[in-house]
Amino acid sequence: MSSERDPIRRLIHAFSRLPGIGEKTATRLTFFVLEAEEEVARDLASALAEVREQVRLCSVCCNLTQEDPCRFCADPRRQDDVVCVVESVPGLLAIERTGEFRGRYHVLHGVLAPLDGIGPEQLRITELLRRLDGTVRELIVATNPSVEGEATALYLNKLAAPFGVRTTRIASGVPIGSDLEYADQVTLTRALEGRREI
Amino acid sequence: MSSERDPIRRLIHAFSRLPGIGEKTATRLTFFVLEAEEEVARDLASALAEVREQVRLCSVCCNLTQEDPCRFCADPRRQDDVVCVVESVPGLLAIERTGEFRGRYHVLHGVLAPLDGIGPEQLRITELLRRLDGTVRELIVATNPSVEGEATALYLNKLAAPFGVRTTRIASGVPIGSDLEYADQVTLTRALEGRREI
Repeated sequence: MSSERDPIRRLIHAFSRLPGIGEKTATRLTFFVLEAEEEVARDLASALAEVREQVRLCSVCCNLTQEDPCRFCADPRRQDDVVCVVESVPGLLAIERTGEFRGRYHVLHGVLAPLDGIGPEQLRITELLRRLDGTVRELIVATNPSVEGEATALYLNKLAAPFGVRTTRIASGVPIGSDLEYADQVTLTRALEGRREI
Repeated sequence: MSSERDPIRRLIHAFSRLPGIGEKTATRLTFFVLEAEEEVARDLASALAEVREQVRLCSVCCNLTQEDPCRFCADPRRQDDVVCVVESVPGLLAIERTGEFRGRYHVLHGVLAPLDGIGPEQLRITELLRRLDGTVRELIVATNPSVEGEATALYLNKLAAPFGVRTTRIASGVPIGSDLEYADQVTLTRALEGRREI
């Protein structure tokens, strides 16, 4: 209790709840904030307050957004017949950065992980099914290439089939610029399985 | 300007001003905060606000503290005749964790770095000299073993001499548990120079 009332220890504790930030980094950040210009702490505090106040889920695709619908759903130049399904907003932004995809998105906010108690009802799957009203012809499942990501892709494939929607999965294989020598077995196996005519 | 008005981009920017946090980590932290329970953001925001409000410099030793004087200066069981001079509060806490030092502290809040425009007047040196009123007999200079830390130690030695105060420097050498094979030349040279009778 007494350590919680010490503002320095409170801030160290609050920083160390963030992912990838242990006690040592949290301590370093705390003393940085204390020694830095006052606006560093003030800007971070106000940005934290505002982000939770102003950012909500897009009512169409469940992207995090200030405007509803979000800019991807509101853009009239994007195709309506193909929806790219991602685990998270950073995944969406990664796809968008390729500049190759001009369809719509849907953010699940996670993947199926029964061992962690995450079933379909914890994800934004109902919202996805609601969108399969005849316009959508293809779901590109771009969940991560993990066990959970694959299982989620299979599950969505089953759900989407009765709607006459084609479900595709992004390719797995050796990343461009990498060295085969250092690729893991599973990735190489996938690369072989997914081989194509040149 | 328009990117600054987007609360997500604002938070990414605020996080990326912290040391060791680049754009990618800042983005990951931002989406974590958005997906986590609301109290994670609220606790961090309030801890940031409070730390700058409630924490000030100890008027004796310049430690960061909620109470003035700080707990090290207020503790009647500590020796008054020896003062350990450190660069920063984390340095003070590191010395304190050894459990070996029972004197007082003084925090400089930096070291002399003329190339970065940091001279004596940017450090808490006036406050240190004010403490040399006859009680203090030894200054242990525990600045980091860097060029700037050494230069600061030499400078403090010159300043303290007229007060009849002994200035000592913490030892440099090979760290316990390390391997000589991987020690750098400067450290090994220091270890040789600082050799002692067994």
